[in-house]
Amino acid sequence: MYGLMQDRPLSLPHVFHRAERLFGHKSMVTASPAGETRVTYREWAGRVRRLATVLDSLGVSAEARVGSFAWNTQRHLELYFAVPCTGRVLHTVNIRLFADQIRYIVEHAADEVMFVDRSLLPILWPLADELTGVRHWVVMDDGADAEIPDDERVHDYEELLAAAEPFAGRFEVADENTAAALCYTSGTTGNPKGVLYSHRSTVLHSLISLTADTAGLGERDTLLPVVPMFHVNAWGLPSAAVMAGADLVFPGPALQPAALLGLVQRHRVTITAGVPTIWMGAVPLLRDFDLSSLRMVIGGGSAVPRALSEAWRERIGLPITQAWGMTETSPIASFGTLRSQHDGLDTAALADVRASQGQVVPLVDLRIVDPETGQEQPWDGRSAGELQAAGPWIAASYYGNESGAGSFTEDGWLRTGDVATLDEHGYLRLVDRTKDLVKSGGEWISSVELENEIMAHPGVAEAAVIAKPDERWSERPVACVVLAEGVRLEAGDIIEHLRPRVAKWWLPDEVFFLDEVPKTSTGKFSKKTLRERFYPEGMPRSLEEPAPGA
Amino acid sequence: MYGLMQDRPLSLPHVFHRAERLFGHKSMVTASPAGETRVTYREWAGRVRRLATVLDSLGVSAEARVGSFAWNTQRHLELYFAVPCTGRVLHTVNIRLFADQIRYIVEHAADEVMFVDRSLLPILWPLADELTGVRHWVVMDDGADAEIPDDERVHDYEELLAAAEPFAGRFEVADENTAAALCYTSGTTGNPKGVLYSHRSTVLHSLISLTADTAGLGERDTLLPVVPMFHVNAWGLPSAAVMAGADLVFPGPALQPAALLGLVQRHRVTITAGVPTIWMGAVPLLRDFDLSSLRMVIGGGSAVPRALSEAWRERIGLPITQAWGMTETSPIASFGTLRSQHDGLDTAALADVRASQGQVVPLVDLRIVDPETGQEQPWDGRSAGELQAAGPWIAASYYGNESGAGSFTEDGWLRTGDVATLDEHGYLRLVDRTKDLVKSGGEWISSVELENEIMAHPGVAEAAVIAKPDERWSERPVACVVLAEGVRLEAGDIIEHLRPRVAKWWLPDEVFFLDEVPKTSTGKFSKKTLRERFYPEGMPRSLEEPAPGA
Repeated sequence: MYGLMQDRPLSLPHVFHRAERLFGHKSMVTASPAGETRVTYREWAGRVRRLATVLDSLGVSAEARVGSFAWNTQRHLELYFAVPCTGRVLHTVNIRLFADQIRYIVEHAADEVMFVDRSLLPILWPLADELTGVRHWVVMDDGADAEIPDDERVHDYEELLAAAEPFAGRFEVADENTAAALCYTSGTTGNPKGVLYSHRSTVLHSLISLTADTAGLGERDTLLPVVPMFHVNAWGLPSAAVMAGADLVFPGPALQPAALLGLVQRHRVTITAGVPTIWMGAVPLLRDFDLSSLRMVIGGGSAVPRALSEAWRERIGLPITQAWGMTETSPIASFGTLRSQHDGLDTAALADVRASQGQVVPLVDLRIVDPETGQEQPWDGRSAGELQAAGPWIAASYYGNESGAGSFTEDGWLRTGDVATLDEHGYLRLVDRTKDLVKSGGEWISSVELENEIMAHPGVAEAAVIAKPDERWSERPVACVVLAEGVRLEAGDIIEHLRPRVAKWWLPDEVFFLDEVPKTSTGKFSKKTLRERFYPEGMPRSLEEPAPGA
Repeated sequence: MYGLMQDRPLSLPHVFHRAERLFGHKSMVTASPAGETRVTYREWAGRVRRLATVLDSLGVSAEARVGSFAWNTQRHLELYFAVPCTGRVLHTVNIRLFADQIRYIVEHAADEVMFVDRSLLPILWPLADELTGVRHWVVMDDGADAEIPDDERVHDYEELLAAAEPFAGRFEVADENTAAALCYTSGTTGNPKGVLYSHRSTVLHSLISLTADTAGLGERDTLLPVVPMFHVNAWGLPSAAVMAGADLVFPGPALQPAALLGLVQRHRVTITAGVPTIWMGAVPLLRDFDLSSLRMVIGGGSAVPRALSEAWRERIGLPITQAWGMTETSPIASFGTLRSQHDGLDTAALADVRASQGQVVPLVDLRIVDPETGQEQPWDGRSAGELQAAGPWIAASYYGNESGAGSFTEDGWLRTGDVATLDEHGYLRLVDRTKDLVKSGGEWISSVELENEIMAHPGVAEAAVIAKPDERWSERPVACVVLAEGVRLEAGDIIEHLRPRVAKWWLPDEVFFLDEVPKTSTGKFSKKTLRERFYPEGMPRSLEEPAPGA
């Protein structure tokens, strides 16, 4: 028997019309090389309506993929709505990919048009002649001094908008499973794989960020999304903010800590989100700004070191709240706000909870599977295994990529490639990436845990642990360490620091000191680069084998 | 093009399994004639699993409607999950209906089994022999002294549970549009009409109550649902609380203000919800209890008089938050939390905002339609018309009732039967029920507004305004007034009180003083009863005509 409820789609047009109607007076600020601009939601919505007709007048097809190559700006948010509200798919290209990867994904997605920030032209325009599917290049002039090509394919965003009639009616997307957005993951092996979000998944994911026990985004918030809008839709937060009617502050290209903290102070930002690297860089400056408006700082993308969250708490009274997810999970799957069972814990115990990746959010299911037996593991906070995820905003497959099928189980769950535990209250704790585990003498060593212990040393800025091939033990851990400015330490100091903290057989065989840890295009430690640098010949097992259970 | 997200249903089994797994330590308290009982979520979940097999062992069919005739209790919440999680439909019968209506809806729903609180047996059991479709009567013994019939159809709830094996697997409902619950509206004319909720609508509606700008239900809350669980699922709040993992306090049959305030004080309730009549009765007692744990008191079901909300604010610093909805809207369609545009308003202006029905919530669309022209009206806070609603938890039709088709527009919106305005920020203000408007000399008088002005008199406890047939003006307003205890007033005092507050032609032609205003089965003023009492022959137009535009 079916319920007799209205068959109304969960769609971005609803979110857009709601924001336009209820929150016309709210504001969006964008920082750019040309200075700060501010528009109201009403002005923004009018521009979205113009952009919708621009897409038609450029001859962009009905279900086209529309590329963006852009910072976090109000214009990017115009694309976030105009493209899916007209039934098209916004493909947010990661500006930090290598040229080969960009070429691959733009061709794979078959983007018909590319919207690019002027400041990013020097990266993208050199590829233009190869990207023959892209018929139009629309430059969003952010005041950078990059040269604008004199080419008939090139248009100016503002000129197109000024010449366009605003779309007058109501946007309609009848089927909530219609695709809305496309992001590619930059895996460490093989070609990037596309995750194709739907209107339904985007709306449900936005709702979750509005719930009180996650980000609790509301109309009174001012959101500063530092995590890039080309990276899993900035964790879905800008769309959620539009649903809530929150004020938005976009940082544009200036992601230096001082610039970001200045935005927080100037615009009384209440909530912000970014990767740990960003928040780490901000620590020395926290006391130089008035950050009293902040109620939540979200860290994700990679594990937030306990010491980092504590550094924030000690300096401004506000620790970092971890959330966990990945491109394939939209991304929010768990969120680290505290629950009543944590009341009364002492400072150290609270810091331990915050060092977890938080509690699984409503509508998402997680499970831990032993990679060898395929058995689901108990939620006891100790039993580790591969983390698998299911839910209405979790990928079912990759876009046009059969080779990615190994990332999904037979019963349709996503295999995350993370090794993790879950405790009795559904708090997730990542142990490692399956491929980054160090397997020594038949036992696993968590590179993440070892890194956290090393980074707890006050003289250490960053640490990455990789596996070194070893005849006797199969693999042994090796630490790559970046020291804080002005600090001098030797390998023995790191080992002595670790000795009381980890099992003896976890102690790294070697400690290398680097000027910086190489990063991937999304700002994570690139252990692949480190392994290639230090052990070019003896690639450890974990890169040669498929993920456990595949 | 379709997105490539997992096709996971929005279903109550997910909500149940989540609560069982994450919130096993949280608690549910129930007050009953036998005293207070307390169980953990874990115990409750185990009982839900037993109840699931009880339904099978009683031979209840796969898609059966299962009736409940019960107060707000933990057992009722067991039915809320065991019934839909096994694919069946919970039909919550309103215990305040007349016998004829109960007979009608139980037969119309074809309930196969009825779960009834012992204290309610005296109302329901006399109908048992006529309700031949009901094969089993399960008595939930709440310690009342009502006699339990010696009849082979009668079972004891606790005995059935004790004898049952708990269902061991995971509940599955594959299609989110599967029916989950059924409530009948008690219209003033015709037979009650059934609204059939789905898993999808229930889950989405629960999520909305978790969002920060509505009730913001979270794990740290303790919810006391005063609004009955037989009345639009207690506004969806118990299900939402289970999704959030909040503690629950159920009042059982004792709905006297002192009993309720005692529960708030004793269990540190943070959020509660009920009809204005309940909150009105509590006013004289507010200072006798420690209510400091309360963060939100929700009023709905009928408009919360400005003076009532102010009385709460003046006494305990917490005004009443209005929400609006109806059986057909699950019910939450608008919610009266304040927004940033209200910051800095003075006390009187804030009270005016709170006297509105609040802002339309995400996923719901509202519109105001002129009943004569059919034109949508502007959102200017002045233009009134029939309120219409659309959204994924709004009814599309009535269960097995073709005669209700006039309640829906051709484009699928619900015609609410309310006359209302919407302002530029989407704040709803009910002017009246279409059928309660007084049409005098071709102009409308809002009975609700007039009642509010009368109730602003400190000597007035309740007031209902009805239309009196009038040869010259067609209709004229008449006030039915209940005075506060010990107060003596005459008709002229009421008129003098109104004179500076309303237009002269709004002044009632007559003022009747009553001991109480008759109420409908859901606790609203029964103006139908008043009209029949005072004007039995000259029924005014509004009861004879169909709703405007029908």
